[in-house]
Amino acid sequence: MRAEPQDFSRVLSSMCTEPHPAAREAAETFLATNPGDPGTYQTVAELEGDAVDALGEIAGLDEPHGYIASGGTEANIQAVRAARDLAATDAPNVVAPESAHFSFRKAAGILGVELRTAPVDSDYRARVDAMTELADEDTALVVGVAGSTEYGRVDPLAALSDVADDAGALFHVDAAWGGFVLPFTDEEWHFDHVGVDTLTIDPHKMGRAAIPAGGLLARSPDVLDALAVDTPYLESTEQATLTGTRSGAGVASTVAALEALWPAGYREQYVRAQNNAEWLADALDERGYDVVEPTLPLVAADVPRSLFARLREEGWRISRTGAGELRVVCMPHVTREMLESFVADIDALARTPSTVE
Amino acid sequence: MRAEPQDFSRVLSSMCTEPHPAAREAAETFLATNPGDPGTYQTVAELEGDAVDALGEIAGLDEPHGYIASGGTEANIQAVRAARDLAATDAPNVVAPESAHFSFRKAAGILGVELRTAPVDSDYRARVDAMTELADEDTALVVGVAGSTEYGRVDPLAALSDVADDAGALFHVDAAWGGFVLPFTDEEWHFDHVGVDTLTIDPHKMGRAAIPAGGLLARSPDVLDALAVDTPYLESTEQATLTGTRSGAGVASTVAALEALWPAGYREQYVRAQNNAEWLADALDERGYDVVEPTLPLVAADVPRSLFARLREEGWRISRTGAGELRVVCMPHVTREMLESFVADIDALARTPSTVE
Repeated sequence: MRAEPQDFSRVLSSMCTEPHPAAREAAETFLATNPGDPGTYQTVAELEGDAVDALGEIAGLDEPHGYIASGGTEANIQAVRAARDLAATDAPNVVAPESAHFSFRKAAGILGVELRTAPVDSDYRARVDAMTELADEDTALVVGVAGSTEYGRVDPLAALSDVADDAGALFHVDAAWGGFVLPFTDEEWHFDHVGVDTLTIDPHKMGRAAIPAGGLLARSPDVLDALAVDTPYLESTEQATLTGTRSGAGVASTVAALEALWPAGYREQYVRAQNNAEWLADALDERGYDVVEPTLPLVAADVPRSLFARLREEGWRISRTGAGELRVVCMPHVTREMLESFVADIDALARTPSTVE
Repeated sequence: MRAEPQDFSRVLSSMCTEPHPAAREAAETFLATNPGDPGTYQTVAELEGDAVDALGEIAGLDEPHGYIASGGTEANIQAVRAARDLAATDAPNVVAPESAHFSFRKAAGILGVELRTAPVDSDYRARVDAMTELADEDTALVVGVAGSTEYGRVDPLAALSDVADDAGALFHVDAAWGGFVLPFTDEEWHFDHVGVDTLTIDPHKMGRAAIPAGGLLARSPDVLDALAVDTPYLESTEQATLTGTRSGAGVASTVAALEALWPAGYREQYVRAQNNAEWLADALDERGYDVVEPTLPLVAADVPRSLFARLREEGWRISRTGAGELRVVCMPHVTREMLESFVADIDALARTPSTVE
């Protein structure tokens, strides 16, 4: 097998990263375990309880209910599913900002709920007035984003929580990517700050656990109960996850990463990433490109399409926002040297004529 | 971290197993990759194509469409989802035998389709007359099982394919567990045998890949198209999976396991497992327990509830069928020595009085 492991030296597009060494080791140790069958795989099932408790500590919840999902998409789908099944309506809808992750569109299609998306303001944050207008008595869930995929923005979550309350809906916060950097900012984002009912926080993104490790947390056990199905021929009796068999690697590496990095290691990682993002934003601004200021470690800038294409030809793994801007996620594997090299390539390419377009 | 890796020496209940050494190595190499973002993680995305092609070869499909899912539950949910969205009805239903895996109940709840379950015959196989009676013009999918979870039975798939045809429905075969043993039997189960539209076949069960590695295969690209959602801010444009970020470990270890074991290694593994199952069935029968004869490497037997409980106290990881029978899955890690030790414990416990019940 021609197995070349992933080279992260030019990856600027991913919201995943290299796992922490302790997380990698734990993942390898627990590779052949299945927390989806806790009666058989008891050790990893206990570890999952530890992982949920630790995520609860980060997200301001003393007695968290939840589990380690395959990722943020599953966690978001499950939040919509629970809200749908707990809502007292035959035509449930979900109100979310248009900046919400595409997994909410996927969830709506799968679950047969109407997704209503509200425009964002000039700083790419949910417009509370627009969200309010969309919410009604059939709204099962209001979604706020804490670290948006495109611009790393945090919605006005306290106000959105009120929108949910007024509509009699549950309030979900998607902190899939932001959850491991927000604790070191002044943002109000978690269960102890605002009236959050469910929250997505992914260890395999900024948390440096191994894929697949997403996190779904809920304030009330009712949410997990709404998701549970009976499980004959397993010694456990219920299963609240979307998938059946699951990876023990994700669970064990979550526990290991949290033990190694919470809180000091994550704080240090955040400071370095945020400094890198600000350095890159300044460098692009100095070169005349329109930059979206990074409030979290994610930079967007309006570079010409031809330059973008040539940077990809140089091997840079970069992606675009919906509006077509260059988007760079300053994950832990993204060093200052990488960014310097990236900017040097931009300078070199900008000097040579393009044959594209 | 108190990391005790899983001990498989007394695990008789699981449909997962220890990965093949080559599969473990590949999983570790590709731990930090995400085939859900193929524009960034190109190598593992190419490997996924190889994996699907290899699964197609096993399942009798020259040009397979599909992907490596998180497991059989996801693959089954996705088959129901595609059928629902391709069906020309507002009230779609799914017709399955009551022996179908509980993931179909989960799928029905999530997707808002009606699940109609037909009784099985005295040998635990779908009754064609009952399936025919349940199917109608609103049937989106007919399900047949190729290696049932409880008894390892293979439904009369050719006849069920006709039921699907007559109803204008798609036909799905769940070979999640059976797919890597059925090639060495006389059963007709795959795309080249009968009119299968979609099929679940899990590398992380009998295929000896690392969790999470399920497989969804489809004869027509329409199925994958029905599942696809747009993906902004990824360089790829569509995503047909249920989850977003996915494990490259599952993909890479699937390729490695298939390279190492298909077909000779899997044949040898099947023969050993089937012999073990027949040995255990004989041993239990000799001791006076009612045994369900193993047509595939899975044994069920009616042992007293108190004996079952005491075997679990001895550390045996065993599970029960819905009818309460002891259920032993002869996975590759289950050796003759393990089974001899298990039967010796049954003998010892049967000689000593029980304090339970």
